Parts: sequence; structure tokens; C-alpha cells
Amino acid sequence: MSITDLTGYLAAFLTTFAFVPQAHHSWKTRDLSGVSLPMYSLFSLGVLAWLIYGILIHSWPIIAANSLTLLLACIVLYLKISQNPN
Amino acid sequence: MSITDLTGYLAAFLTTFAFVPQAHHSWKTRDLSGVSLPMYSLFSLGVLAWLIYGILIHSWPIIAANSLTLLLACIVLYLKISQNPN
Repeated sequence: MSITDLTGYLAAFLTTFAFVPQAHHSWKTRDLSGVSLPMYSLFSLGVLAWLIYGILIHSWPIIAANSLTLLLACIVLYLKISQNPN
Repeated sequence: MSITDLTGYLAAFLTTFAFVPQAHHSWKTRDLSGVSLPMYSLFSLGVLAWLIYGILIHSWPIIAANSLTLLLACIVLYLKISQNPN
């Protein structure tokens, strides 16, 4: 594998799995006060768009990475909305 | 422009600009309690890897989007570290 491909896979791995500690932290502490609702709304929509893009171009790495990120971002978004209904 | 390209550009726009309200919220309120330090550490490293990947494959859209995301994620990371030095 080339250094370029390796960098791309490392990047995809890090930006996907970064949301595991955030979802875990939010779930455990239920402390969402510093988390921005507009951020997770826009980000979840964006990740959904990446998922649709991956389906349209038949790219399994894009589909897999963004399915996981969408799940994790939606957990944080759900916790934020449920604590901040107005 | 095809619907596929349009979906990709929309996705890139949303996942990049989602960090504007988070950086603004964190900067204004200095409330970082619900924000996960491991998330922003891993995410910033991942975005840096995407930036290097963009440079290696000479992709200006990847370079531009990830330069902005790196700046915004590093603002949140800096605020988190400065409030939570231990």
C-alpha cells in the first residue's frame, strides 16, 4: 500500500472513530451543555449526504465509515435535543 | 453538474461548516464541559491526515475543506485543553 493510500485510510479511521469517545462521554455524563446543537444538526445532515454519495458512487469505504459516524453523531444529537427541547 | 457531484459538494460543505457554530459557541461561552477531549484530539489528527492526503493527491477541494475544519477543530481543542490542563 502506498503512503498516500495509508494516509487516506488513517484519516478516515481517525475522523470516524473520534466520535466514539464523544458519544460515550455524552451518554455516560448526560452533560451536553458545551455541545452545539447547530453543529450536530449540520454535521449529521452532512454525514447523511456523504452516505448517499457513497451509495451513488458504490464506494463501500465511504458507506461503512459514514454509517458508523452517522450513528454516533445521531446519538449525540438525540441526547442534546432530549435535554434541550426548546 | 450531476446529482452525485452535487451530493458530494453538499456533504463536504455541511461537514466542514458544521464546526463554525461549535467553535463560536465554545469561544463565546467557554463552556467545554460536555465536549470530549479524546474526540477533538483524534478528530484534529484525522483532519490533519486528510489535509496531508489532499496535498499528496493534489486535490484542492480536500485541501481547502480540511484546512478550514482543522482551524475550527483546533480552536475547540485549544479551549478544551486550556480549561482542563490535567
